[in-house]
Amino acid sequence: MKLALVGIGKIAVDQHIPSIAASDQWELAATLSRHGTLDGIDSYTDFDTLLNTHPDIAMVSLCLPPVPRFEYAAKALKAGRHVMLEKPPGATLAECHALTKLAQDNGLSLYATWHSREADKVAVAKAWLADKTLLSLKVTWKEDVRRWHPNQDWIWEPGGMGVFDPGINALSIVTEILPVDIHLRDATLMVPENRQTPIAANLAFYHPRGAEVSATFDWRQVGDQIWTIEAVTDQGTLTLLDGGARIMVDGREDALVDNNPLSGEYPRLYANMAALIACGGIDMDLRPMVHVSDALALGRRVAVDPFHD
Amino acid sequence: MKLALVGIGKIAVDQHIPSIAASDQWELAATLSRHGTLDGIDSYTDFDTLLNTHPDIAMVSLCLPPVPRFEYAAKALKAGRHVMLEKPPGATLAECHALTKLAQDNGLSLYATWHSREADKVAVAKAWLADKTLLSLKVTWKEDVRRWHPNQDWIWEPGGMGVFDPGINALSIVTEILPVDIHLRDATLMVPENRQTPIAANLAFYHPRGAEVSATFDWRQVGDQIWTIEAVTDQGTLTLLDGGARIMVDGREDALVDNNPLSGEYPRLYANMAALIACGGIDMDLRPMVHVSDALALGRRVAVDPFHD
Repeated sequence: MKLALVGIGKIAVDQHIPSIAASDQWELAATLSRHGTLDGIDSYTDFDTLLNTHPDIAMVSLCLPPVPRFEYAAKALKAGRHVMLEKPPGATLAECHALTKLAQDNGLSLYATWHSREADKVAVAKAWLADKTLLSLKVTWKEDVRRWHPNQDWIWEPGGMGVFDPGINALSIVTEILPVDIHLRDATLMVPENRQTPIAANLAFYHPRGAEVSATFDWRQVGDQIWTIEAVTDQGTLTLLDGGARIMVDGREDALVDNNPLSGEYPRLYANMAALIACGGIDMDLRPMVHVSDALALGRRVAVDPFHD
Repeated sequence: MKLALVGIGKIAVDQHIPSIAASDQWELAATLSRHGTLDGIDSYTDFDTLLNTHPDIAMVSLCLPPVPRFEYAAKALKAGRHVMLEKPPGATLAECHALTKLAQDNGLSLYATWHSREADKVAVAKAWLADKTLLSLKVTWKEDVRRWHPNQDWIWEPGGMGVFDPGINALSIVTEILPVDIHLRDATLMVPENRQTPIAANLAFYHPRGAEVSATFDWRQVGDQIWTIEAVTDQGTLTLLDGGARIMVDGREDALVDNNPLSGEYPRLYANMAALIACGGIDMDLRPMVHVSDALALGRRVAVDPFHD
């Protein structure tokens, strides 16, 4: 199936394009970007022109920042194309609900992707936790924003989500691996005094069976980068490391093996999208975004040192 | 049917208690409050004791501030009681989703009430707008916070929503009377520098058919209080005044008559709840809360003068 890629930024170049190139299910037929082009691929700056020129393109994959994404997604769905959304699926929850309705009304597939859920060890972690009693779960997501988002001003603007941009990855894993739903009960947001979005956040969640569930997100980390989820259960401690790429049970890294034949987050997302279209499905699990929205709405804001790139 | 009222504050005394007293469907059998009691009604300070003492109570109506509400609602549902929620239905969207699931799993009715939707002229406004083309809709909700929320510190705390506490009433009417769904595209939040929640907000919405939809909420209004929604259509201008108590078409107040036999917002809410239980239904329309959550998550914060009660 042919697809168009909209928004040729860092994530498109680093992840989407190599994954599409490696897929035997997808062919990149066109790109849309203000600036970026790809050798040998039709490039457009106007989306209407792209859609009109390419009725053969069945799917549009959107890698724009969240704020402008809705208009492109709505236009693609109205033009009869399936749509795949980079995370987060939109700038607001209401617009995600509107896209879901639009996809339903037009009989099209719509996929809110959460790439971290496709990390190598997430599925095996979910299976391991399914029959254990959770006592506590602690997320530690600490990275250097200057290294991962150099000069990306939009992440500091309203709707850019700040440290929740990586934090939502952790929440997408937590909502995937836990067999029950949690909800936020307390949040503290550290917001640089010259910015609109938090550079760090501490979250505490209500768990229906009384486990202590908490998360610490921090963009001020230098040196070692930490993306860890530690789940203490009645039958041992499971630790996901490196954002889900590695797993340990009671400190042993060889305790569990996974059987997932595909390798890599984005190749799995594109395979999922092909499967979703094949069965005529919609996958708009908004739980990670609801938690972020709840944190931004409910959180106590504390002003911290200004941030300069 | 017998009910218990939880949280005997201003809204309970002003609205809930007289409406229950006037109803021939409901009997107030018990109250729960840290301080307030009612003459001749069993009063409790512990919710478990109330529930255990009164297996005859079929429904619990919650008028607490939003943050503590979830625990009471969950406990009531687990004890097999129907639940009616004062607006907003919770402190987070995720907890509202959890309550919906709990009610479904236990076969109980759950009602997220929006009292302003039951204002006298809302139904007739909805009917009038149904077959017109909307060109613009403008909400103006300006009131004096010192008059309506004297010394209510919780409204200034995270989760208390600030000016969205009245603003969500306007949004509950807008989402009721418009035949299509809107979503937020821009928000500015004026936050007193000594408080956590906004004292004023300007919102702009995307409308799927291109109408200009906006809202101005302001708690700094002195003198005349304004709760107005003006909808300009291809066939004239409809204006809801006084929070939906009055209606005009093209400036004429006698243009439309309503046929709603009950009078008053809260009597209608309690009648709705009785009907919901009779049909085994759940009514958790979260759209007004989604818009507020989107505004608090997406809005640009501007510091304004400190607020002192």
